[in-house]
Amino acid sequence: MVAVRKSVEETKVALHGVVREMYDRIVKGDPPTMTLPVRTKNNIGFDPKLGVYKYGKKQAIRDATSLGSAKQLLRALHVIEFIEAMIDDGKSSTLREMYYISEGWGLGKFQSQNESNNLAEDLEIVTRCLREDFKLRPEEDGSRMIGNITLRERNRKGQWMRINARDDVGDSGYGVPYNVEKEKIEFLEHDVKFIMAIETGGMFDRLVENGFDEDFDCALLHLKGQPARSTRRIMKRMSEEWDLPVVVFLDGDPWSFRIFASIAYGAIKTAHISEYLATPSSTYLGITADDILAYDLPSDDLSKKDIEALNAELTDPRFADGWWQEQINMMLEIGKKAEQQSLAKYGLDFVTDTYLPEKLAELGLN
Amino acid sequence: MVAVRKSVEETKVALHGVVREMYDRIVKGDPPTMTLPVRTKNNIGFDPKLGVYKYGKKQAIRDATSLGSAKQLLRALHVIEFIEAMIDDGKSSTLREMYYISEGWGLGKFQSQNESNNLAEDLEIVTRCLREDFKLRPEEDGSRMIGNITLRERNRKGQWMRINARDDVGDSGYGVPYNVEKEKIEFLEHDVKFIMAIETGGMFDRLVENGFDEDFDCALLHLKGQPARSTRRIMKRMSEEWDLPVVVFLDGDPWSFRIFASIAYGAIKTAHISEYLATPSSTYLGITADDILAYDLPSDDLSKKDIEALNAELTDPRFADGWWQEQINMMLEIGKKAEQQSLAKYGLDFVTDTYLPEKLAELGLN
Repeated sequence: MVAVRKSVEETKVALHGVVREMYDRIVKGDPPTMTLPVRTKNNIGFDPKLGVYKYGKKQAIRDATSLGSAKQLLRALHVIEFIEAMIDDGKSSTLREMYYISEGWGLGKFQSQNESNNLAEDLEIVTRCLREDFKLRPEEDGSRMIGNITLRERNRKGQWMRINARDDVGDSGYGVPYNVEKEKIEFLEHDVKFIMAIETGGMFDRLVENGFDEDFDCALLHLKGQPARSTRRIMKRMSEEWDLPVVVFLDGDPWSFRIFASIAYGAIKTAHISEYLATPSSTYLGITADDILAYDLPSDDLSKKDIEALNAELTDPRFADGWWQEQINMMLEIGKKAEQQSLAKYGLDFVTDTYLPEKLAELGLN
Repeated sequence: MVAVRKSVEETKVALHGVVREMYDRIVKGDPPTMTLPVRTKNNIGFDPKLGVYKYGKKQAIRDATSLGSAKQLLRALHVIEFIEAMIDDGKSSTLREMYYISEGWGLGKFQSQNESNNLAEDLEIVTRCLREDFKLRPEEDGSRMIGNITLRERNRKGQWMRINARDDVGDSGYGVPYNVEKEKIEFLEHDVKFIMAIETGGMFDRLVENGFDEDFDCALLHLKGQPARSTRRIMKRMSEEWDLPVVVFLDGDPWSFRIFASIAYGAIKTAHISEYLATPSSTYLGITADDILAYDLPSDDLSKKDIEALNAELTDPRFADGWWQEQINMMLEIGKKAEQQSLAKYGLDFVTDTYLPEKLAELGLN
């Protein structure tokens, strides 16, 4: 299912809806309100049909009958005005800048960055828009990509630039911008059979240096640990628009399993936008628990925290299928975890000459 | 003074020198040795002529008369062999990969990544080469650059690619590779008056979005906090080869002062290669302690650690000049620090319309 994104005009209409709810109450002489889903864990469920996490139907009403909530509503109005001005001016802002900008909002001033981040999320949930539609972005850098993929990016001057992520970039790759939506990025053509998402920079650079993208007709994407939203969005868009498989190559530990789950099924924190961020068709390639045994990889003992995380994953609906249960139990049994770079035990080319070809063959991709 | 770098052949000769010292002793029936400078703080001095930190003349001899040092020498030989094979094969390796590769070295196997990192540094010091000459690199990503700078990068296939860091890249900029030496990067031409190095991604993106590089004829470089070696090297090379001023725009706190010092004068950890990494002609633009007052910036109280760091800086030779002493004392007096993004208090354009033009005018750059 391809989730349809909102246009600039629809974003404005959705934001005006929030203002209208307040306005309609005020003209009737009632205290203004803002209605939003309850954001506690018991209102989040795994939607087996969509294959992602979603909010349930429970709603909460925030009304201006206490000073605290009145300030919250005032802040929401200031933020909406700020967002609309940015949309009209073709600007964007970091969440940090918005926090500082609120210095000029009198009683609506944020007390902490946490407050402003949460309000941005509230507005996403109420309006069913993305933070990117609001022109708000985090500090984090986007990922890097290398492969025979041609896209066009509309640059800051409004000009469309055609970029091939193999021929037009240096060895550090194409830098994925914070906004990868249709108004900013259009995919033109490709000559790849799949997309490989890679956890560490060291392994990404290894595959680039070894020419893996050319030898195996794939695009390489550096996740930088837990991937930024733009990274998850670009993966999802390429996968859907070009019907390309995504294989995910991570360290072999409980935290990497979580990274995979957030890529494939969405994260609890962003449950309101899972249908935009998650790529349910992606596949975990490795490092698996049985890789540690099969390839006799250098490994470390599981820490107490690792064991707790694995136990929590055993009851997480995202890991409910038999294959994952087996892998998690096996890792608990052997008591070991391993990094992707531990494959270097057999030399710098082992990963591209032996490990990946064998694993891709198992997935029918080689 | 432009420090001359070693060629591939000179790197090999320098590495063979380490082997020869051991060999010459062995054939005489003596235990092999490796001679290197003492790497303690009291053998590091500030060289006022070069304006950077340097090692002194004290030397230590590591000889194979204990099992521990014998293993160290064995590891050095394995590493030298590994490096030479990489040079011959046109490969490179992360420090992490080298650590795992040592699994195959029997008694020479590293016990921890710390050991392998330290040995790489030892070899730098003994041979007066750079880690980059050894084809060893860290995990960290390089920085991003935007501006009217044309360079050519030799890509992994050995082809030279001409890239303009304004016209040929997306809004995320040109990704600086881990190796920016002459065999990999050549600077062709530019139309900028200075280079501005920026601490945070949020501020880098702000200046890019506002078109600051075009309005003020400069190149923008994202430092990503404490800058990677490749970031410091590319700044230094552009500054020297094109005789361009470097201005450094950071948060206003003791840790940013340290970042500046490492850019301008070198860091203790890399004192053996300060002449390759430091750019003594760079200037600190802000945020200064008096900016916090002059622009009435949103600020935070100094923590106990901040105060300790400022006090340590007062006696650091790199901050010995009158201007720095004044700034550090003023920050201690007002008890406040401020982030660069706090300028957003006055709107998203204040930094480019008001703050930077005023500060650059003080430096004679506007």
